[in-house]
Amino acid sequence: MEAYRLLYPLRTYLIVSGRLGDEVNVMAADWVTVLSHKPTIVGVAVSPRRYTHKLITKYREYVISVPSIDMLDDVWIAGTESGPSKIEKLRITFIKSKKIVTPSIREALANIECRVIDSRDYGDHTFFVGEVVDYTYKKEAFTDNEPKPTSKFLAHLARYKFVVFNEEVFTPSKT
Amino acid sequence: MEAYRLLYPLRTYLIVSGRLGDEVNVMAADWVTVLSHKPTIVGVAVSPRRYTHKLITKYREYVISVPSIDMLDDVWIAGTESGPSKIEKLRITFIKSKKIVTPSIREALANIECRVIDSRDYGDHTFFVGEVVDYTYKKEAFTDNEPKPTSKFLAHLARYKFVVFNEEVFTPSKT
Repeated sequence: MEAYRLLYPLRTYLIVSGRLGDEVNVMAADWVTVLSHKPTIVGVAVSPRRYTHKLITKYREYVISVPSIDMLDDVWIAGTESGPSKIEKLRITFIKSKKIVTPSIREALANIECRVIDSRDYGDHTFFVGEVVDYTYKKEAFTDNEPKPTSKFLAHLARYKFVVFNEEVFTPSKT
Repeated sequence: MEAYRLLYPLRTYLIVSGRLGDEVNVMAADWVTVLSHKPTIVGVAVSPRRYTHKLITKYREYVISVPSIDMLDDVWIAGTESGPSKIEKLRITFIKSKKIVTPSIREALANIECRVIDSRDYGDHTFFVGEVVDYTYKKEAFTDNEPKPTSKFLAHLARYKFVVFNEEVFTPSKT
């Protein structure tokens, strides 16, 4: 057993980097977390071998896009193919972000716009820490300040295997 | 909408810190990620107001324990109550870890033993980066180097609402 797999399944996200045109890229990433409420800070670990690493380093921005299971084929291409040539294969639409130049993805359930405030090398990855400067989301996927359990948020189980959440909501016996 | 909620549901874990006896603590944490494959490095964001923060700072060790839905009441207590008095309310059994002194939890599906190699303050939390030095896991929850989708791994939807994964596994159309 590889130790990191003990934390799986983990949510899978799409990381958009660069600039519309020849210099845009989309990568799938499981290694994403929240770091702070106020200000809202998030982080994503990216291998230095990824084109995304070059683009985030160059522009100091990225978008975390939230895919549903409906985007599974796109997530797979984004996660397994390399460089800008894969962009043509993706069935996604880039749209303007609100506060940063790196674009968002129309089909995603949410797009979180981040400006890099720190980056640290840990082992074989770089952890890009970003302050959330703006965001967009689909009202049908999130309601009353929380995600809907019916939104089919995508999670990565292992290799080519993905899962979604059950719609049943559990609550502790004493709340 | 608070931006960080757009990344939810996130997996919920238990963070064990300190030393058996008066100085052990267990906290629920959603803000956990993998940072590197080789070496295996993980990170967890902890508020400085938490007793866990003091204990990790003091001993430079922590265990990430993986709860199933069966431990939901314990996760809730660990996440909402404070300080060592809550430990008596938990229906968990501490057991020796393999490589560090901070104990593991018998009932958890896995226990990941971490030594702190870095800590950074981001906004209102401290991100404790740990190298995984050893781990234990239940063979019925993980098999063939991957998690079983039937293991009822716990995820946090919002506030007092939790979800688990559907057992159905999805694969991309071209793999």
